[in-house]
Amino acid sequence: MPKNNLMLDALAGKEVSRPPVWMMRQAGRYLPEFMELKNEYDFFTRCQTPELASEITLQPIRRFPLDASIIFSDILVIPNAMGLQFTMKPDIGPWLDNPIKTASEVEKLPTGNLNENLRYVFDAIKLTKEALNDEIPLIGFAGSPWTIFCYVIQGRGSKNFDKAKAFAFTQPQAAHALLQKITDVTIHYLQEKINAGCNIIQLFDSWGGMLSPADHKEFSWPYMEQIVNALHEQVPVIVFAKGCWYALEDMSQSNASGLGVDWTITPQKARELTQGKVTLQGNFDPSRLLSPPEVIQCMVKDMIDQFGTQRYIANLGHGILPNIPVENAQAFIEAVVNYVPDAARV
Amino acid sequence: MPKNNLMLDALAGKEVSRPPVWMMRQAGRYLPEFMELKNEYDFFTRCQTPELASEITLQPIRRFPLDASIIFSDILVIPNAMGLQFTMKPDIGPWLDNPIKTASEVEKLPTGNLNENLRYVFDAIKLTKEALNDEIPLIGFAGSPWTIFCYVIQGRGSKNFDKAKAFAFTQPQAAHALLQKITDVTIHYLQEKINAGCNIIQLFDSWGGMLSPADHKEFSWPYMEQIVNALHEQVPVIVFAKGCWYALEDMSQSNASGLGVDWTITPQKARELTQGKVTLQGNFDPSRLLSPPEVIQCMVKDMIDQFGTQRYIANLGHGILPNIPVENAQAFIEAVVNYVPDAARV
Repeated sequence: MPKNNLMLDALAGKEVSRPPVWMMRQAGRYLPEFMELKNEYDFFTRCQTPELASEITLQPIRRFPLDASIIFSDILVIPNAMGLQFTMKPDIGPWLDNPIKTASEVEKLPTGNLNENLRYVFDAIKLTKEALNDEIPLIGFAGSPWTIFCYVIQGRGSKNFDKAKAFAFTQPQAAHALLQKITDVTIHYLQEKINAGCNIIQLFDSWGGMLSPADHKEFSWPYMEQIVNALHEQVPVIVFAKGCWYALEDMSQSNASGLGVDWTITPQKARELTQGKVTLQGNFDPSRLLSPPEVIQCMVKDMIDQFGTQRYIANLGHGILPNIPVENAQAFIEAVVNYVPDAARV
Repeated sequence: MPKNNLMLDALAGKEVSRPPVWMMRQAGRYLPEFMELKNEYDFFTRCQTPELASEITLQPIRRFPLDASIIFSDILVIPNAMGLQFTMKPDIGPWLDNPIKTASEVEKLPTGNLNENLRYVFDAIKLTKEALNDEIPLIGFAGSPWTIFCYVIQGRGSKNFDKAKAFAFTQPQAAHALLQKITDVTIHYLQEKINAGCNIIQLFDSWGGMLSPADHKEFSWPYMEQIVNALHEQVPVIVFAKGCWYALEDMSQSNASGLGVDWTITPQKARELTQGKVTLQGNFDPSRLLSPPEVIQCMVKDMIDQFGTQRYIANLGHGILPNIPVENAQAFIEAVVNYVPDAARV
């Protein structure tokens, strides 16, 4: 058990003295010390060198009074482990030379336990755990199977992932076969992340919100639920399904301990849809961190007032942006740490 | 009054024999006859040559039994009229050499009646009205002021319009001044579109969904509402605020006759939020038009069953995609035209 147990308590529904706080992509390009390493090592070198991944994970922890760390890595390590080798193309981002196009290509993909291709992640976790000295919990993560599916079919980022959706809607059987393979690899991977020391798991359904409610129920949620069910007895699992407000009600009835919400839903509505059945995490608009620090502090207080202090984890509604001044990120975190409800103010 | 008054009746809340149908971007790249003109003339030439714009508007009407036409044009004609000259860059899309960066640049922008710079649109409308011979109504449109703001600040399309949001959140006063200027130009423009013959106006708040509910209430909706209030006594106005399910309740209490909804909300939820106060339009996932025609037909029937036949306009949840087979678009439209409720089936 980490000494700071705010985050685990909030996820367990236990009473906390104040909400815990961390930021998605807290180890990222808004930090000058991150930029130094970014300029020196390319993206996958940073992910695949345990010392670098661990160092990057620890950078924000040294600066800010965060209540959780999250291992520096990428959701695309899973397709890479399956032999679908993504590279980072300048000005484009993730790039796969030969995206999956046919059912027979799906059939040829390996599945099951591919952890030997992912050893660098587990090593990074072990190094980080040693350095953290059980002060705060360490979060491990993976992309949702649908989100990984989007990348391996589209072969790159996209505004609407039209090719991925076309594949799902014209070859649904092959799509489900691929989603199941990704799911199986992911479960083994996350299991080993927990063995290596992760205290919490978060699933990022970054592109779930491209789907209609009915299609999300067919192509995304069932695979996430398999993962949640495989892990929830060992560690709490948080599902962050961006843009999927419509799925909050169903997801709140699952074994997930926490649900991430983006900034396009009010705290009231998110509570209403989830009926207090689950811990909520979010949902500060990352662009709002461009406001002056004193505005940020007011907005954070307001956000906590609206979510309530219990069963709540303060966070952004998506990853922090590269152009955020460090002092603004700090204002966000400190506003949570120093939160005092109106009733307790003198 | 057009002979086919399904669409106007649906917007007026009158009883209709079946829901009207049209498709956003129905004059577009999925049509081979459109591609011929696209290959011959560049984007703004097509917009700015009344004969071409009118011809493109009529192309889908000749093929399909649509209940409305929508003038071929672009939302960026407004910044162009204000002297912010967008071009179309290959592989990039809309491009502005010098995006707005400062309050003093905002101050220098013209506003008010700039219709003399937009005469080509009104001429295209008049030509189209003649050709339509009052068979079906003609829809005129504009971008929401927030959406135009996004483009003139960002200078191009974007995944998250981070620069536009940064401007709004760090220079709110200048942002509001710019939004008001765009609003004033847009009201004059749409007024003249109505004078030229448009029977219905639709506002596209394409990037409203990037904003939190509170920020949408500050930066987007009030400007759309000004436009709705300026026009609603002359023609019905439809507001399509993509991704803004959270604003449906407020918008349904306005003078808008119709609200467009995208595919990330169930018909039931959309009805619940709008309480039958307004006509709803949507919401077939454009990617779902890649399904086989027989699947499309089932899904369309299901969609109408869920929305109900009254106060409803069948449409997609966003513009039709370029890679949709023509017969699939046809299957969508015919499924609406031939809709028979279960109770009336033998």
